[in-house]
Amino acid sequence: MSELGEFELIARYFKRPERALGAGVALGVGDDCALLQPGAGMQLAVSSDMLVSGRHFFADVDPRTLGHKALAVNLSDLAACGARPLGFTLALALPTANADWLAAFSEGLFALADAHHCILVGGDTTRGPLNICITVFGEVPPGHALLRSGARAGDDVYVSGTLGDAALALKAMLGEIELPPEVLMQARKRLEQPAPRVALGLALRGIATAAADVSDGLVGDLGHILEQSGVGATVHTEIATSLIASHAYFMGASGPNDLQKMAPQLLQCALAGGDDYELVFTAPATNREAVLSAAQRSATVVTRIGRIDSEPGLRLIDAQGKPLAQQLASFDHFGT
Amino acid sequence: MSELGEFELIARYFKRPERALGAGVALGVGDDCALLQPGAGMQLAVSSDMLVSGRHFFADVDPRTLGHKALAVNLSDLAACGARPLGFTLALALPTANADWLAAFSEGLFALADAHHCILVGGDTTRGPLNICITVFGEVPPGHALLRSGARAGDDVYVSGTLGDAALALKAMLGEIELPPEVLMQARKRLEQPAPRVALGLALRGIATAAADVSDGLVGDLGHILEQSGVGATVHTEIATSLIASHAYFMGASGPNDLQKMAPQLLQCALAGGDDYELVFTAPATNREAVLSAAQRSATVVTRIGRIDSEPGLRLIDAQGKPLAQQLASFDHFGT
Repeated sequence: MSELGEFELIARYFKRPERALGAGVALGVGDDCALLQPGAGMQLAVSSDMLVSGRHFFADVDPRTLGHKALAVNLSDLAACGARPLGFTLALALPTANADWLAAFSEGLFALADAHHCILVGGDTTRGPLNICITVFGEVPPGHALLRSGARAGDDVYVSGTLGDAALALKAMLGEIELPPEVLMQARKRLEQPAPRVALGLALRGIATAAADVSDGLVGDLGHILEQSGVGATVHTEIATSLIASHAYFMGASGPNDLQKMAPQLLQCALAGGDDYELVFTAPATNREAVLSAAQRSATVVTRIGRIDSEPGLRLIDAQGKPLAQQLASFDHFGT
Repeated sequence: MSELGEFELIARYFKRPERALGAGVALGVGDDCALLQPGAGMQLAVSSDMLVSGRHFFADVDPRTLGHKALAVNLSDLAACGARPLGFTLALALPTANADWLAAFSEGLFALADAHHCILVGGDTTRGPLNICITVFGEVPPGHALLRSGARAGDDVYVSGTLGDAALALKAMLGEIELPPEVLMQARKRLEQPAPRVALGLALRGIATAAADVSDGLVGDLGHILEQSGVGATVHTEIATSLIASHAYFMGASGPNDLQKMAPQLLQCALAGGDDYELVFTAPATNREAVLSAAQRSATVVTRIGRIDSEPGLRLIDAQGKPLAQQLASFDHFGT
């Protein structure tokens, strides 16, 4: 619990042993600026996310998972653009400089950074209410970035991995629902240690027409693609709902009564749950083989959940093909 | 005082009218990432600073000056590297989304951004204790960045503009000293609306051997240059002190008694006062003409305050050439 000065803190927890900085980083931590050297002609993809205690995480969250998540949500933005991670800056406001907390936080942070060859190049530390702001940099060849604006009528709509588990965990942790311990543990890992889909994003370059990461919920984030592409979509909600990892639990062990009871919650988590950090993307039907191949290359499950229409708006349909018009309105406020 | 949602807030205050993004920015606000396109072969200089209410600014500060300062401290880092500003991301945590506050904040921010052709390319907004994190990007030809590590024995040491006025204003605003209203007004402008020395930094490429911006105080920031260059320096404190704009006031109107009384305060502000955002830099004696020419081209006053020695350590000497050994130790804690 000893208090550390800013420079000592940086040296102890955020200055890494001398090592090759990597091709894209010419100068790292320690000067007024870091110097990035993108590959010849490459564009630099940039994204910034701020995580605030009590809003994006519980104040007593394990600092190791917090370090992971703070970088993961930023890498997820690079993934959604199909950019290869190069480096990041970390700005950190701390109420106190607690050595144990910092050791665990930096351990979680660097474990994920190293896995993605993403170098800490600089940043800032200050005293203040706990706040973590990471800005991440990646590179992508001009014209190859996956944008939100490229979806075309007739394209398939896909999501990666599973949807809604993070929101399910949050509901359980807030006491709004009850989950069996083993389901909660699984779901909570999705909330606290999301896996950014960087490899999938890279594999989808030249195959997907549009992509976004699912940070605010499927309806909201697919909505951004639709709006910026000037199109609409039809999504099969029973497929989306089946992507909740714990859906199987309610289908099976707990019996149909529990499933009946939980169905609205599961639907809501799948469609409007935030914090999934999966990718929602579109690709022409002629690219179905290529999408499957990209999924295999990146060892990531992808599921086709609908199609892009020329008619604007998002149409959610159930297993019988009927619209969920009533429910749709109620999803609006989850997106913000 | 009406409350705004995140997307409405971004659209209203941070989305600018459609305009040329500038050569270095291929895609701005609105996708998962922004896309920067540095000039062919250029390096990207990156810096990130976080400003926290109650620590870096008073909670009731004019939001217009806060918007200015939040970007200015970042542009100052680009200046210290000799990098040309391209763009920045803004992450903002706000306790409430107050329309008047946001209008003034964004006005101050964009006025400075426009003056430096620096484009807002993305960011994040969230609810939380007031916190402003800006990450700024500039470009510099490989090998031309001004680093902290380039000072050599025999080089001259210079600072730009005036030193210590910001610290003097802060002392007065905290009630530690009294300043006449017209002196306070002048000094307070330096504290709240610092002018980043971007033009000077660019003009010093190829002329200065090392540079840093004076954010933590001259002793601390020159200290970084000395440490990273493996050299020492001798600085004439009476020259540094004379750079306090209000020094003339104490020399003149208020009479020698006031000056006598204030001398230790002025010395401390000049040597250890933070928030000046001037540049401290070094250049070989053979470049004196070139430094003056760079100062003229960038319309910035520069003053030679000392020289680099091969012997490590910073030696502060008074008008009689005597060392200020006693006082030096007491400056240590100002730097942190």
